Amino acid sequence: MALKAMVVVGNPKPKSRTLKVATTLVETLLVPGTYDLEVIDLADHTAEIFAWPSDEMAALNARVAQSDLVVFASPTYKASYTGLLKAFLDRYPANGLAGVTAIPVHTGADLSHAMGPTVNLAPLLVELGAVVPGRGFYFVAGQMDQLDEIVGQAAAEYAANLGRLSAVAASTRGAASPSSSAV
Amino acid sequence: MALKAMVVVGNPKPKSRTLKVATTLVETLLVPGTYDLEVIDLADHTAEIFAWPSDEMAALNARVAQSDLVVFASPTYKASYTGLLKAFLDRYPANGLAGVTAIPVHTGADLSHAMGPTVNLAPLLVELGAVVPGRGFYFVAGQMDQLDEIVGQAAAEYAANLGRLSAVAASTRGAASPSSSAV
Amino acid sequence: MALKAMVVVGNPKPKSRTLKVATTLVETLLVPGTYDLEVIDLADHTAEIFAWPSDEMAALNARVAQSDLVVFASPTYKASYTGLLKAFLDRYPANGLAGVTAIPVHTGADLSHAMGPTVNLAPLLVELGAVVPGRGFYFVAGQMDQLDEIVGQAAAEYAANLGRLSAVAASTRGAASPSSSAV
Amino acid sequence: MALKAMVVVGNPKPKSRTLKVATTLVETLLVPGTYDLEVIDLADHTAEIFAWPSDEMAALNARVAQSDLVVFASPTYKASYTGLLKAFLDRYPANGLAGVTAIPVHTGADLSHAMGPTVNLAPLLVELGAVVPGRGFYFVAGQMDQLDEIVGQAAAEYAANLGRLSAVAASTRGAASPSSSAV
Repeated sequence: MALKAMVVVGNPKPKSRTLKVATTLVETLLVPGTYDLEVIDLADHTAEIFAWPSDEMAALNARVAQSDLVVFASPTYKASYTGLLKAFLDRYPANGLAGVTAIPVHTGADLSHAMGPTVNLAPLLVELGAVVPGRGFYFVAGQMDQLDEIVGQAAAEYAANLGRLSAVAASTRGAASPSSSAV
Repeated sequence: MALKAMVVVGNPKPKSRTLKVATTLVETLLVPGTYDLEVIDLADHTAEIFAWPSDEMAALNARVAQSDLVVFASPTYKASYTGLLKAFLDRYPANGLAGVTAIPVHTGADLSHAMGPTVNLAPLLVELGAVVPGRGFYFVAGQMDQLDEIVGQAAAEYAANLGRLSAVAASTRGAASPSSSAV
Repeated sequence: MALKAMVVVGNPKPKSRTLKVATTLVETLLVPGTYDLEVIDLADHTAEIFAWPSDEMAALNARVAQSDLVVFASPTYKASYTGLLKAFLDRYPANGLAGVTAIPVHTGADLSHAMGPTVNLAPLLVELGAVVPGRGFYFVAGQMDQLDEIVGQAAAEYAANLGRLSAVAASTRGAASPSSSAV
Repeated sequence: MALKAMVVVGNPKPKSRTLKVATTLVETLLVPGTYDLEVIDLADHTAEIFAWPSDEMAALNARVAQSDLVVFASPTYKASYTGLLKAFLDRYPANGLAGVTAIPVHTGADLSHAMGPTVNLAPLLVELGAVVPGRGFYFVAGQMDQLDEIVGQAAAEYAANLGRLSAVAASTRGAASPSSSAV
């Protein structure tokens, strides 16, 4: 069964470079043909983001929560993620992203806010129950010409991290093992 | 081959409740017989912690870095991890905990510093290259009589998180798959 | 000339307890008759918060930036400030709150997110150039019957902090002193 | 009466550039002749930092707590302050820096950890009851030849911030005003 991959972009402006960085990360990290990718550009949904209830937003929230891997990407606003992305995440109940592997991505003008995805966005995703497989990924927007190379290094690190976690997973109590599930 | 598990305790006082909480977490999370456990109580090494170089500290650092799963546990001092634990982690070079699955644990007097392991210790471990499989674990020290139950819930969540990561890991490029390793 | 005081509330629901807590804090901290107080309830402005440009939002942003003291208050959403409050603050340029004394306030259901205003909202306000005179203020929403007492303790601490800062201010280079301004 | 100014340096290596940056900041911020400056280089006290009780450490802690202005300076270790600085601060009881105006300073190799003094060291000092008059100050260690200019800009901002706080202080209840104290 195909892995369900998702990109959620928190830039109030649509079709941003941040979106391009996030989708490139998914395409670099995962093996072609093994996953389905959906992209949610929150810029298309600002009119509904504070509506309550909202069928439109509920459907988006549900599709993200049911994904296996989600890249949450935001430009750096005031050293952190955007209010738009936070407003989307605020709609979840406690533990609303349980079961999701989440990668936090920030883009920014220079390195001075490079800690943002690790100290701001990652703890937010973790608070919602997601698991973040390593550091947040920060991309300097002026380096789009080196996008493939820089994303490639980050993807290799995430892949290595995920591989090592599998070894620990196999030793945890309650882990689904081949032998026990065969009984 | 047995999983290598480790507990590192940052309490300046030896044999603390924090140590007990951390070892209980490992014993609850992992299947008996599948792992070896070592405990490093940093209270036993304060005389060497700022010595440079130090064979004693270098050996400790190496054993932790070579572990599969490490619980880093600290009492809450000033809403964060102790200086003793930070001093131990400061001895690593960049990315010194790459390949380690790390669980941050804080103990504290009440819930007011419950965010500490998630917003302070987790980003520190991640900065060193470790992967943290979910929220940090905060334990109210006055609840030692409910230790097994509270740790049991946390362990179940970590086990579930680790299991789900394995599914994503299988779809990443460069992941070691059964078929490729069989060749 | 009267001090300009402001309350900005980031609750998507209008007329919240969070608003009540914030206004009580201002009224307790400042001497009656020495200040003018304005309250901005962002719940009244959600339709415009992502509009760009927006005369309505620009006017709100300007009035806040020109205030002497601003209490920024938010319910706790996902252990942090709301996306609504962040979206309002995102509209400022760099250093947009320079010259503002800002007090971060979070309300929440219990103490488990008590670190939020100090580790999340305070650094955000500081990033915008504001000065925060002490810890963030966290109020457990179920204690509205003790509001005056709890706010009174916080106000006393802010007043003491502000008083001590004045002594340091008098020794800084370029500080406006009575004698120099009299020349 | 002279202002009591203090520099506390958390570098395990003595007489560091970090110490030079911190003392330059004090000398640039304050008017010559209005203050006394003491420098505590924690590298000189590593043998005692975990001793309990310790007359030597208690005396250092007391002198810092009784200061009006303290610059706490640390090289960047793992994106944050050093364990040595934290171990010194851990010795304080709750609210142990109440009444202190504190400026957090980190030095680092490049801008990638520039958020450190604002998101890590500032909240720690605030937790202890200190007031931080603005952003943390981050200094790129390779720019020692521009030290005076860069520190000058930071000092001007702190001076401006402190001046503005005085206006708010004058309107707080319980503030000591010239007229009331004259009665």
